[in-house]
Amino acid sequence: MNEETAIQRSLELADRADTAMLGTNGDNGYPNTKAMLKMENEGLKVSWFSTNTSSQRVSQLTRDKRACVYLVDTKAFEGLMLVGEVEVLSDAESRQRIWGEGFERYYPKGVNDPDYSVLRFTSRWCNYYHGQHNVNFEV
Amino acid sequence: MNEETAIQRSLELADRADTAMLGTNGDNGYPNTKAMLKMENEGLKVSWFSTNTSSQRVSQLTRDKRACVYLVDTKAFEGLMLVGEVEVLSDAESRQRIWGEGFERYYPKGVNDPDYSVLRFTSRWCNYYHGQHNVNFEV
Repeated sequence: MNEETAIQRSLELADRADTAMLGTNGDNGYPNTKAMLKMENEGLKVSWFSTNTSSQRVSQLTRDKRACVYLVDTKAFEGLMLVGEVEVLSDAESRQRIWGEGFERYYPKGVNDPDYSVLRFTSRWCNYYHGQHNVNFEV
Repeated sequence: MNEETAIQRSLELADRADTAMLGTNGDNGYPNTKAMLKMENEGLKVSWFSTNTSSQRVSQLTRDKRACVYLVDTKAFEGLMLVGEVEVLSDAESRQRIWGEGFERYYPKGVNDPDYSVLRFTSRWCNYYHGQHNVNFEV
């Protein structure tokens, strides 16, 4: 598989995925993983998520911003790992940007709820695989 | 949710999951994630996987055995993270133990293929969540 095909298929996978696994550096040097609702993506370069400010995830990312985002279609044996950094944001523009229907369930005080944080992930490099083929590329 | 309920639901999730995400420590301190076929599990304590000896995963785990295994039911907003260590095994008993139908596709030389490695993951602690509830426990 060439890089162009890998990038094209990665974009398709990113567009159809509504869940992403976020990998972070947890306590004592152990990696941690958690499923996140994927709110928005700008191609393969930037992905946006929301989470509770009080969550483990936020304290881990404040300490160490290195992370990976993993998207998978298990039936098709197809997966995409994006490796990069996460910024934890709480400014008004970022809050508004990804605020969606039903968010009050998680953040009862609304868009300015102090327990509402926005995660902005930026990729450095990617690995796409399908079956036994895999390709690394930068975006 | 009490610990007993969390453990019971975690066991049910582990039994019905056929895919697991394996989180490892990748290059330059970045976490990595990859979907793996879950071959076998002994409750929540031990999970077995197979992989290519030549894979990134094996070189990462040989360098740093700290890992996490993540199982998720995205529709039910239910997930389980197991945090612990992976041993990379190539002895005859481990190879036989998880060898299955169709493995020749990945390991053409059969059960003794030098490119066939077995991963044995042992949990130290677990985090189970369902909706907005989550519980840490040890197994």
